[in-house]
Amino acid sequence: MKQFLDFGSENACEKTSFTFLRQELPVRLANIMKEINLLPDNLLRTPSVRLVQSWYMQSLQEILEFKDKNADDEKVTYDFTDAVIKIRNRHNDVIPTMAQGVVEYKETYGTDPVVSQNVQYFLDRFYMSRISIRMLLNQHTLLFGGKVKVNPAHPKQIGSIDPHCRVSDVVRDAYENARNLCDRYYMNSPELILEEFNGCKSKTAVVFLQNAMRATMELYGDAMEYPAIHAQVALGTEDLTVKVSDRGGGVPLRKIDRLFTYTYSTAPRPSIDRSHAAPLAGYGYGLPISRLYARYFQGDLKLYSLEGYGTDAVIYIRALSTESIERLPVYNKSAWKHYKTMHEADDWCVPSKEPKDMTTFRSF
Amino acid sequence: MKQFLDFGSENACEKTSFTFLRQELPVRLANIMKEINLLPDNLLRTPSVRLVQSWYMQSLQEILEFKDKNADDEKVTYDFTDAVIKIRNRHNDVIPTMAQGVVEYKETYGTDPVVSQNVQYFLDRFYMSRISIRMLLNQHTLLFGGKVKVNPAHPKQIGSIDPHCRVSDVVRDAYENARNLCDRYYMNSPELILEEFNGCKSKTAVVFLQNAMRATMELYGDAMEYPAIHAQVALGTEDLTVKVSDRGGGVPLRKIDRLFTYTYSTAPRPSIDRSHAAPLAGYGYGLPISRLYARYFQGDLKLYSLEGYGTDAVIYIRALSTESIERLPVYNKSAWKHYKTMHEADDWCVPSKEPKDMTTFRSF
Ligand SMILES: Nc1ncnc2c1ncn2[C@@H]1O[C@H](COP(=O)(O)OP(=O)(O)OP(=O)(O)O)[C@@H](O)[C@H]1O
Ligand SMILES: Nc1ncnc2c1ncn2[C@@H]1O[C@H](COP(=O)(O)OP(=O)(O)OP(=O)(O)O)[C@@H](O)[C@H]1O
Repeated sequence: MKQFLDFGSENACEKTSFTFLRQELPVRLANIMKEINLLPDNLLRTPSVRLVQSWYMQSLQEILEFKDKNADDEKVTYDFTDAVIKIRNRHNDVIPTMAQGVVEYKETYGTDPVVSQNVQYFLDRFYMSRISIRMLLNQHTLLFGGKVKVNPAHPKQIGSIDPHCRVSDVVRDAYENARNLCDRYYMNSPELILEEFNGCKSKTAVVFLQNAMRATMELYGDAMEYPAIHAQVALGTEDLTVKVSDRGGGVPLRKIDRLFTYTYSTAPRPSIDRSHAAPLAGYGYGLPISRLYARYFQGDLKLYSLEGYGTDAVIYIRALSTESIERLPVYNKSAWKHYKTMHEADDWCVPSKEPKDMTTFRSF
Repeated sequence: MKQFLDFGSENACEKTSFTFLRQELPVRLANIMKEINLLPDNLLRTPSVRLVQSWYMQSLQEILEFKDKNADDEKVTYDFTDAVIKIRNRHNDVIPTMAQGVVEYKETYGTDPVVSQNVQYFLDRFYMSRISIRMLLNQHTLLFGGKVKVNPAHPKQIGSIDPHCRVSDVVRDAYENARNLCDRYYMNSPELILEEFNGCKSKTAVVFLQNAMRATMELYGDAMEYPAIHAQVALGTEDLTVKVSDRGGGVPLRKIDRLFTYTYSTAPRPSIDRSHAAPLAGYGYGLPISRLYARYFQGDLKLYSLEGYGTDAVIYIRALSTESIERLPVYNKSAWKHYKTMHEADDWCVPSKEPKDMTTFRSF
C-alpha cells in the first residue's frame, strides 16, 4: 500500500511505471498460468477454462512485445498504456467464466474431495493473482490513461486508492446499497447501528451487510420489526477492524468453512442468461472473493455464528500502510505439491465403536 | 458422549468396562508413545521428558499384565480398578512436567520455527490423548472405584458427566470463581451480563472469564467503573455456543495464533517452586488446553478481537450427544510425515521491492 501511495502521489512517472509493469506483469501472468496447467485435465478441457486460458496467453504475448522497446520513446509508453487498457477489458469476465467452467465440470464429472480441494486451492490463488494484476493495471490506467493524474470523480484519490477514506462512511454507504436491494426484495429492511472506536479502506463490508440483512429478513419473516444490524469499527495500533453483527439465526460451525468454498453453493445455479444479473449473483462467491480482497493487503475476513441466534462477520485490515504489503501466490515446488499430493489418511480419528472387536486395534 | 452416557447410565458392568479398557488403553498409550519417540533428540533427552516417558512405559506394562487374566474373576477386576487409580495418579503432573521439558529445551537450544511447529503439533496430540485416556480412567474409577455407582457429591452425574447440567449455571459459577481471583488481585472486578438464547457441558468458560477480567482491569487501570463482561449462551440445532465478550482492548490479529502456542508465552516463566501455585498458572496453557477440551468432543474454541476495543471468545459444543464423538490422535503415516517434513518454501510471497531489479524475476 505504501509503495502504491508513494509511487502514485508525488511525481508519478509513466516511464518508471512502464518499465516496472513490462517486467512485473509477465511474472504474475506466467506464475499463475503454470498453475492453470496443473488443473485436472477434464476441467482444463471445458470451453470456459479454455477461453480463460486463451485470454491469459494473448495478454502475456501483448506485454512481452514491449520487452525490448525504448522506454524513452513516448509513442512506446503511450501504446503500452493502450495495451494495458485492452488487457484489463479482456479479463473483465474472468471470474464468472472460470466459475462457469467449474460448474460445467461438476455437472459432468461430479465432485470428489481431492478435486474440490485442488480447485479451492487453485481458485484462491488464481483470483488473488487477478486482484493483484488488476490493481497494477488500474493504477497505471488511472494515473496515466487519461493523461491527467487526478481522477475528476474522486480528486483526492491516488489511482484507485483513497488515502482519506473514512471506514464508517464506507460502512454507511454499503448499508444504504444493501438496504435498497433488501427493500426491493423484502419490502422492508433492518436498521443499522454503527459504533466507532478510536478511528479506511474497505468495500467488502457490503457483502456482510447484504448477507446480514437477508438472514435477518428470512428469519423474522413477516414480523413488522426486525432486530437491527450492528456495525462496529475499531482502530488499534495494528488492525483496523470492522464487525457486522446480525440476529439472523446464524450458521452451524460445521458449515462455516463451506461458505468460503467455491465448489459448494447453497444458492441455485445461475441460469445461462446472466445478462441482467449482477456479475456474480448466485455463484455464492461473495464471501470467498471478499476474503481474498481482505487478504490481498495482509488482512483477513472471518465469520462466526451463535447458531440459533446470529452471526458476527469481521474484516481485519492493516492499520499501517507499511504493513499492508501485497500477498501474492508464487509458483514453486510447494505450490506444485499441492496439486500432486493424493488424499492422505487422517491423522485424527474417532474411536473404535465396539468394545469387543479386536480388529479395530488401531495401528498397534 | 452418547456411548459414555449409555454405558454409564443403566447397567454399567465392571467386567465389560474391564475388557474394553484392557484393550483400549494400551492402544491409546502405544499410539502416543510412538509419537513421543519422534520428538527431536535433544528434547527427548531432557530429564522432564524422560520422566514422562517412564510413566507411560510403566503404565502400559501394568495394563498389559491384565491381557490374559480371567475377566470373570472378581479379584482380577478389583485389582484392575486399583491399577487404573494408580495409573491416573501417576500421570497427574504430566502437563506441567512436559511443559517444563519444553522450557528446558528452549533455554538450551533456543527456538527454530520447524521445531516449534513440531512441538505444537505433538503437544496438541499428546494432551488430547491424555484427555481421552483420563476420561476413560475417570469414568471407570468413578463408576466402579468406590463400589457405588452414584457419586454422593453429584448424585445425578454419570461418572464425570452431568447430563442435566445447565450451561448458564456453569458460566455463572465460572464467573464467581474468576471474580474471586480478580477481586483478590485488583481489589475490584467487572460485572457479568449473561444472556441466554433458547436453551451443557463446559468448564472452559472459566479461562475466558479470567482472561476477560484481566484484560478489562489492565486496560481500565484505576478507573472506578469497568465495562461489564458480556456472556451469551445460544442453543441451535447443532451447536451450543458460549460467547464471552469483553472491552479489554483486544489483541491484534497477527498475535491471535500465538495465544494458542505452547512454545510462546507472554507470561514470565514460572519459578521452579510451584508448590503454592495453581498447576498451570503462568505457562500460558489456559487457551490451548481449553481448546483441546472443546475439540475432544468435536467442538472448538476461538478468539476474535477488535484491537483497540475488546475480545470475543467463543466455545462451540455439539448440541447432540450422538455428534459429540471423541476426537483422537492416531499414529499413522500422515502423522509420521508431520514430524519428518522439512520446512518448505512458502507458496505465497510478497512482491519484489525494487521495480528495476531484474534479479527478482520470480520463478520465471
Ligand atoms: N450473516 C449471515 N447469516 C446467515 N447466513 C449467512 C450470513 N452470511 C452468509 N451466510 C450464508 O453464506 C452463504 C454464502 O454467502 P455469499 O455472500 O458468499 O454468497 P451468496 O450471498 O449466497 O451469493 P452471492 O454473493 O454470490 O450472490 C449465503 O448464501 C448464506 O447461506
Ligand atoms: N480477552 C482477552 N483480552 C486480551 N488478551 C487476552 C484475552 N484472552 C487471552 N488473552 C491473551 O492471551 C494470553 C494467553 O492466555 P492463556 O489463558 O492461554 O494463558 P495465561 O492467562 O497467560 O496464563 P495461564 O492461563 O497459564 O495462567 C494472555 O496472557 C493474554 O495476553
